[in-house]
Amino acid sequence: MNDFQRRSAEINDLLCVLNILNWDARTQMPAGGSAARAQQLATISALTQEKLLDPAYEASAREVGGSDVEERAAQQALAAIAALKRIPTQLTRELALLKSEAQEVWARARAASDFGMFAPLLTRMVDLNRQLAEALGYDGHPYDALLNLYEPGLTVETLLPLFDRLRAHHVPLLRAIQEQPQPRSDFLNRSYGAAEQKRLSLALAQKFGYDTARGRLDESAHPFEISFTRQDVRITTRIQENFLSGALFGTLHETGHAMYEQGVRPELSRTVLTSDLLGLYAVGGASYGTHESQSRLWENRIGRSRAYWELHFPQLQATFPEALGDVDTAAFYRAVNTVRPSLIRVEADELTYDLHIMLRVELERALIGGELAVEDLPAAWNARVKADLGLEVPDDARGVLQDIHWSAGMFGSFPTYTIGNVMASQFYAAALEQRPQLEEALARGEYAPLLGWLTDNIYQHGRTYTPHELLTRVTGRGLDPQPYLDYLDGKYGELYSLDTQEEQTR
Amino acid sequence: MNDFQRRSAEINDLLCVLNILNWDARTQMPAGGSAARAQQLATISALTQEKLLDPAYEASAREVGGSDVEERAAQQALAAIAALKRIPTQLTRELALLKSEAQEVWARARAASDFGMFAPLLTRMVDLNRQLAEALGYDGHPYDALLNLYEPGLTVETLLPLFDRLRAHHVPLLRAIQEQPQPRSDFLNRSYGAAEQKRLSLALAQKFGYDTARGRLDESAHPFEISFTRQDVRITTRIQENFLSGALFGTLHETGHAMYEQGVRPELSRTVLTSDLLGLYAVGGASYGTHESQSRLWENRIGRSRAYWELHFPQLQATFPEALGDVDTAAFYRAVNTVRPSLIRVEADELTYDLHIMLRVELERALIGGELAVEDLPAAWNARVKADLGLEVPDDARGVLQDIHWSAGMFGSFPTYTIGNVMASQFYAAALEQRPQLEEALARGEYAPLLGWLTDNIYQHGRTYTPHELLTRVTGRGLDPQPYLDYLDGKYGELYSLDTQEEQTR
Repeated sequence: MNDFQRRSAEINDLLCVLNILNWDARTQMPAGGSAARAQQLATISALTQEKLLDPAYEASAREVGGSDVEERAAQQALAAIAALKRIPTQLTRELALLKSEAQEVWARARAASDFGMFAPLLTRMVDLNRQLAEALGYDGHPYDALLNLYEPGLTVETLLPLFDRLRAHHVPLLRAIQEQPQPRSDFLNRSYGAAEQKRLSLALAQKFGYDTARGRLDESAHPFEISFTRQDVRITTRIQENFLSGALFGTLHETGHAMYEQGVRPELSRTVLTSDLLGLYAVGGASYGTHESQSRLWENRIGRSRAYWELHFPQLQATFPEALGDVDTAAFYRAVNTVRPSLIRVEADELTYDLHIMLRVELERALIGGELAVEDLPAAWNARVKADLGLEVPDDARGVLQDIHWSAGMFGSFPTYTIGNVMASQFYAAALEQRPQLEEALARGEYAPLLGWLTDNIYQHGRTYTPHELLTRVTGRGLDPQPYLDYLDGKYGELYSLDTQEEQTR
Repeated sequence: MNDFQRRSAEINDLLCVLNILNWDARTQMPAGGSAARAQQLATISALTQEKLLDPAYEASAREVGGSDVEERAAQQALAAIAALKRIPTQLTRELALLKSEAQEVWARARAASDFGMFAPLLTRMVDLNRQLAEALGYDGHPYDALLNLYEPGLTVETLLPLFDRLRAHHVPLLRAIQEQPQPRSDFLNRSYGAAEQKRLSLALAQKFGYDTARGRLDESAHPFEISFTRQDVRITTRIQENFLSGALFGTLHETGHAMYEQGVRPELSRTVLTSDLLGLYAVGGASYGTHESQSRLWENRIGRSRAYWELHFPQLQATFPEALGDVDTAAFYRAVNTVRPSLIRVEADELTYDLHIMLRVELERALIGGELAVEDLPAAWNARVKADLGLEVPDDARGVLQDIHWSAGMFGSFPTYTIGNVMASQFYAAALEQRPQLEEALARGEYAPLLGWLTDNIYQHGRTYTPHELLTRVTGRGLDPQPYLDYLDGKYGELYSLDTQEEQTR
């Protein structure tokens, strides 16, 4: 190991330790441990920052020559160091303090459904994030600087037309669906034993190819995936006895994330190319959007497909004979693909989810750009929900206060969910084009060929490429919503017996 | 916080993080994660050492004035820094490398029951530990320097006469017991459901006073207790379906350790007085022996007492009606106090356990003193087992190879188990003397008064006092085996209908 590699390995170890501390806090830690844990996290974070900003680290990165991969690692380290240096220490400190206060106040405000309680803190949070954007720098819109923290290279200029096109497609498609009769889905809310749900979810994850010799499944309030090198990649799920889809599709979703991390080339462990140096997070995926493309590909493209349930519904039925005895494969497939507008993002279906995301992106971009005042936010939120989803927002708790993101200082992460949907379809289309026999394998329940293609083309590279580079290498083009729109039209057109020609927006 | 407090807090955070990484590795981590975890541990350990040896830390400790407690913290930090400085970097590195190699070879040698495989590594390990002792310095025997790592202030000069007295007591008592008929204990090996064992063990731990808002119980191959400040103190147990005592008494044992940690004064969190700076371990107890005194007090003095089972046996029987339906309280009490010589330390009963310890201490002291060659170790071991326990050692796996300690470089930790027994009886006698109503409370199943006395007198102080200071403050004298011998004579005299006058060694 040269000096740069040695220092990068130490920094990656520290990021893995931060991930472990966070995993434990969210899955195992007794309630009493939280204050001490916050201090431990703060200490390790500060040490990591110190290591990152050590002039000797920058010097070591400047001396790197050799392989292309090694030079990319050095460039990424230098870019992160430069960005970190641009952020005033005072701003970092203020943001950290405000985040912990704002999350607490937000939780109380949401419980009381009172936006007024949260507004002063949100105003301050928007202000600090605008300062952060100014410090980081941008060419076009200040929101670009924040977007870049989650999706390197993405800009408002690319994002807005893409989202306009999605909205112009989704809203009419949703209206058309709403005119059709809804399938029954009441049986998803029958009683499903927690232990059986967990066992079956894990078995399906393993069947996809999740390696439990390098992973494990736990329960947590909010499902997540987290890695401490490719050798230890853990997922969680939330099990509700009266809601089968939550744990089932939640696990398939996290499994997609996990297989991405497990598929990173071993040589990239303990390097910059499995480190998010600005986010202080150990991660092998290229970006939030790229990561989300894989969770959604496995959850939605595979896990919610007709072929998947034709194979696996008998196993599900055998596991829950009482709840599913009177249900058949076709009914189950329809039920888990029901489209129905709702107020809460995390409960939304595949189609309306994008509408939830796009309204948040529109509003947070306007807040950061100074085009929308915090006091006007609830009205803007409610109007957008009415226009896109056709629903009245009855209170702030079910409206503008529902997500933790803004109180946690996260501006710019929301778009990555929808970017993930778009990318997932692009990658999947490329896979089918390059390996036409993949679909037959999937229909036989063989997931290794797809996993192999994804690993070869995407997973193994870790963070070597930017999302745009990766997408272009693999699919031959940048972000392109067409494969995603085709997929949605095809799927819902058939499920809801629509005249799909009419709905398409080509 | 002054500079010394701030630096000490940061170091304690790092020690807590090491503990968390170790807890996870032993209870949760998938097998694939071990190599990456070793690197994460090495990185955090190195950073901690760096912080400890930062000249600014030493300077900050020298500037401390003020309260007695603060001055003690500074003195302990200065002593640890001085000791660390005396250990050559090269020796630390060689020891670390040898430990990982030796543990691997030991595991294979034990599986093959072949001491010859392990002997060359043990020879090297003894040699490095003698070098360590020389580096650390000592007045009497080199073994003193190593003892001091686990039991500050303890010397061979104090230890040997104490152990001679214990052996002179225990061996004749064991012989007398062996002449008596043994009670039945076969029912302890009936079938006991794992989930019920875990639930009941935890309920009994909570009844003692273990606060699960600041703790949790998991399973592991070897039971242990570990803390990340007093706010998060975790225990583990090993559950075997055909052996009730393992999980049951193992949990009560670890509960004693845990209540010690949970009882440390909050002000001592994140200070030197909850840090083992030489061992790189976050711990609130004064020493290994003091800690063991509390696990043994709660496990043996309380948990194996007649009064305890008169209260709790009905609950146990109700939990396991099939296995214990034909057993009564008296039979159960006798069974869990059976004395029977055995070859394996970790399976030994309360009385013969000390004999296992004393033979190890005698041998490791002789190895470190250069009075015994590694090649002569198995013969010396087997002779001692024959003399003390009356058993023939059939092979090395059930003899000299049974413990991991020496392969892990731990010389000097074994005495603390027996020191713990001695201290437990001294503390318990002091408690009963100072609070005569304690025994009545215990007979009613009220553990809070005892826990309160122990917290006030021992737990709250953390590592403020040396074990000798603490013992003297609380009991008015140093290590004194008499209360322990009286307890054993009383208990086994009655259980085995002995003429106890004859057995006593006053």
